[in-house]
Amino acid sequence: TAAAAAPRSSLSPPEFEMRLHVINRQKLVKSLQQHLADSNRPIQGIVLLQGGEEQNRYCTDHTELFRQESYFAYLFGVREPSFYGAVDVATGKSILFAPRLPAEYAVWLGQIKPISHFTERYKVDMVCYVDEMEEVLHSLYKGEDKSLLFLLHGLNTDSGNFSKPADFKGIENFKTDLSTLHPVLTECRVLKSKMELDIIQYANDISSEAHVEVMRNTNVGMKEYQLESLFLHHTYMYGGCRHCSYTCICATGDNSSVLHYGHAAAPNDRTFMDGDMALLDMGAEYYFYGSDITCSFPVNGKFTADQRLIYNAVLDAHNSVIAAMKPGVNWINMHKLAEKVILEALKKGNIITGDIQDMMALRLGAVFMPHGLGHLLGIDTHDPGGYPKGLERPKEPGLSSLRTARELKEDMVITVEPGCYFISALLIPAMESSETSRFFNADAIKRFVDFGGVRIESDVYVTSTGCKNMTNVPRETWEIEAVMAGAKWPIEKGLNHSQNGIANLHS
Amino acid sequence: TAAAAAPRSSLSPPEFEMRLHVINRQKLVKSLQQHLADSNRPIQGIVLLQGGEEQNRYCTDHTELFRQESYFAYLFGVREPSFYGAVDVATGKSILFAPRLPAEYAVWLGQIKPISHFTERYKVDMVCYVDEMEEVLHSLYKGEDKSLLFLLHGLNTDSGNFSKPADFKGIENFKTDLSTLHPVLTECRVLKSKMELDIIQYANDISSEAHVEVMRNTNVGMKEYQLESLFLHHTYMYGGCRHCSYTCICATGDNSSVLHYGHAAAPNDRTFMDGDMALLDMGAEYYFYGSDITCSFPVNGKFTADQRLIYNAVLDAHNSVIAAMKPGVNWINMHKLAEKVILEALKKGNIITGDIQDMMALRLGAVFMPHGLGHLLGIDTHDPGGYPKGLERPKEPGLSSLRTARELKEDMVITVEPGCYFISALLIPAMESSETSRFFNADAIKRFVDFGGVRIESDVYVTSTGCKNMTNVPRETWEIEAVMAGAKWPIEKGLNHSQNGIANLHS
Ligand SMILES: [Mn+2]
Ligand SMILES: [Mn+2]
Repeated sequence: TAAAAAPRSSLSPPEFEMRLHVINRQKLVKSLQQHLADSNRPIQGIVLLQGGEEQNRYCTDHTELFRQESYFAYLFGVREPSFYGAVDVATGKSILFAPRLPAEYAVWLGQIKPISHFTERYKVDMVCYVDEMEEVLHSLYKGEDKSLLFLLHGLNTDSGNFSKPADFKGIENFKTDLSTLHPVLTECRVLKSKMELDIIQYANDISSEAHVEVMRNTNVGMKEYQLESLFLHHTYMYGGCRHCSYTCICATGDNSSVLHYGHAAAPNDRTFMDGDMALLDMGAEYYFYGSDITCSFPVNGKFTADQRLIYNAVLDAHNSVIAAMKPGVNWINMHKLAEKVILEALKKGNIITGDIQDMMALRLGAVFMPHGLGHLLGIDTHDPGGYPKGLERPKEPGLSSLRTARELKEDMVITVEPGCYFISALLIPAMESSETSRFFNADAIKRFVDFGGVRIESDVYVTSTGCKNMTNVPRETWEIEAVMAGAKWPIEKGLNHSQNGIANLHS
Repeated sequence: TAAAAAPRSSLSPPEFEMRLHVINRQKLVKSLQQHLADSNRPIQGIVLLQGGEEQNRYCTDHTELFRQESYFAYLFGVREPSFYGAVDVATGKSILFAPRLPAEYAVWLGQIKPISHFTERYKVDMVCYVDEMEEVLHSLYKGEDKSLLFLLHGLNTDSGNFSKPADFKGIENFKTDLSTLHPVLTECRVLKSKMELDIIQYANDISSEAHVEVMRNTNVGMKEYQLESLFLHHTYMYGGCRHCSYTCICATGDNSSVLHYGHAAAPNDRTFMDGDMALLDMGAEYYFYGSDITCSFPVNGKFTADQRLIYNAVLDAHNSVIAAMKPGVNWINMHKLAEKVILEALKKGNIITGDIQDMMALRLGAVFMPHGLGHLLGIDTHDPGGYPKGLERPKEPGLSSLRTARELKEDMVITVEPGCYFISALLIPAMESSETSRFFNADAIKRFVDFGGVRIESDVYVTSTGCKNMTNVPRETWEIEAVMAGAKWPIEKGLNHSQNGIANLHS
């Protein structure tokens, strides 16, 4: 059949292991106990989180596909809506509260699962119904006075929104603490366990493979959304990934300078043309954990000299940062390193001119790369914890876009995604400014008016002595050209680029 | 390349024609003027609708892919979030209000479009900014006293939710009417224009083709979600359909008796086995308008005698209803016709026994088909208008699930989706009830414990003299077997099923 001829995958979806969440809960309990002890508070109280609810589209009965709230997913791994979850800080005992479903559910939505199903599936100590929650929580609490609940309330530093603390009938009979849980739980999410790393690695593996598949099937005259469709299909069909980490950005030509292209008002609908660059920022999510990968390449499979120049500037930045990453390194310095490498390459290419230190001092890097170098990655694409209390967001152009300004720590997963874009809204003011106009070679810049931009993004985890790139896609220009011409990926070892079965790659 | 070998489509996405919305607005203005005249009210006032807003996932900056609110889409066709739209009832003049975007938008989300872009794209008389709305609406209003706004407020009879009337700073300076607009606008949506029918036909064409593609690529041992992925890919890659009308239901084996299978708690994740039936309810949306198609077939490509019995019972019901549909026919009677045809077939197959009239009187049909026969289809999968004021929802089992109890009218589009399911939660009580136990042949029923169910769903529009089926997929068991064995669809004319290039179909 046709499917048999379609591209296959070397991967298959791994089983979910609920032990991952047991470990996550243990980590939280340990951290909370430590935190309470450090502040001379009694080791008592119950963490209570409310899971997500299914949402209808506006006033209709169109149900949006439910995706669990991320903090709840982290602690409990529950895929169903309308649950609550509790963890006793003193004992670590975990309880899920399931909604009591009406009898019609069995006809319309599926078998009504007994309590034992959830206890077994989610590896918690106990499961009760939501309508029993008040009573159960009171009986669980062993402290003095009113029972104490730690609720989740705190700022998401990317969105500016606050997480919504659990609410239920009877909560007024508890003492509630809104400030302790959020920073502690957020910090737990920042450092990934071995089991979390394994899933992020799988999401990277299937997404990397899908990027290669897309590259190979890109042809002049296609629509941008066809690349999105190829990616989604590969990661779902062969990888079991029903959700994407974020809306696919499939930008070609000038669109590639629109950093968050692909949304409803700019919906990946351009027909791309010979000579265009493509910038594809796409990552699959598997079992809550995401990936976030960007590949940039010429849609016709051959880099022009200008494309090679910009591409290699960004690749050098990407590689330089990864070579420097290790625990203790400050992310602002990595951002500046990327800027510097890019500016040096642009200078070497006669696109800009002058002293690199002067450029850096005037934040010229932010004209070409207005976004941050990268962000924490996990259950959210922009995983929380980038600015813990006391760490201020930088104010300078470019740096102010950084989603974290932290020092790297072992077991962080962070994206490395330098880019170089020709964005009129930024370039024109910079070229007209008396402070920075001297740096630009206006004639050269003209060649790039419709160029768009290049971004190269990998997901990297920090080890005790350095880091490891979890993403595996063609990065060197010759690798990209070879794969687009039909070479296998990874390219066979021992062959150099002129021996890879592809004749005259550089002809 | 691999893509070149992949299944292709005979279709390509048509251009959007904004005239469709000009016609929709004209229809509303005419209806409202008539309604006001009939109630001796002055022909004045301004219809004001608020478009949808982009939504973040919980507290994060993860943006859900925006889909316009359906009433707003109907009148204005705007794909961007955060718009308002107005129509002057007296003159028909139309105005869109666009959000004033901050300068950073150009860097992150795309070029900031001038007002003229929206005027041209959306074919309205005028476009202003949202922050000018109060002033513009006052100046537009030519009536006496306070300016009058008709706002959208009314019950969605499928969800039980109310549409949210437009709100903006300064609305307190207007007189607002919350009751007039909703029923009139809803009734406009019930009867489709030629241009609307063309798009629903396209959504049907690409979805029908995708169903055939899925059928052809179904093999024992696959996962249900792989069929979903094949469908989504075909409709997006070749059809340009970014949205689905609803979450795909890819149910095999026993799951096919769960009417709304496929949601997050039952996520199409079963590996199907030789001997299973598949029930695939999947429809793509194109340019806001949807399709809703169900195919049922054996995953191994050959019907067993029992599968053929149940399948043909449902197919006979489907065909009988379509043969009877025309303006003036009451939908409750069509539902009962479907029930009767199915009960007769089950009786003929010795699964049930007794007098059909008695069974009908005791609502036995609802044991095997607990859902309604079909629903209006349009910009929403369950398009509104099923129960206009004064029309009561029936109370009897099965009939109470009907999303409409109307008489058919020319230009309605309605789904015809009879089904026959073996649902323990319904069968066991009916078999134990002293009133209905006598109808069941318990030995025969035993054979169907794990059968699941069959549904056959087509989208049908009502013509002046009858109706037309817009869905085009293999329906006869021999057609399904032929297509699954590799025959082209549509099967070539002039060939009967034993001459279709497929040897020994019935061997
Ligand atoms: Mn990223
Ligand atoms: Mn339907």
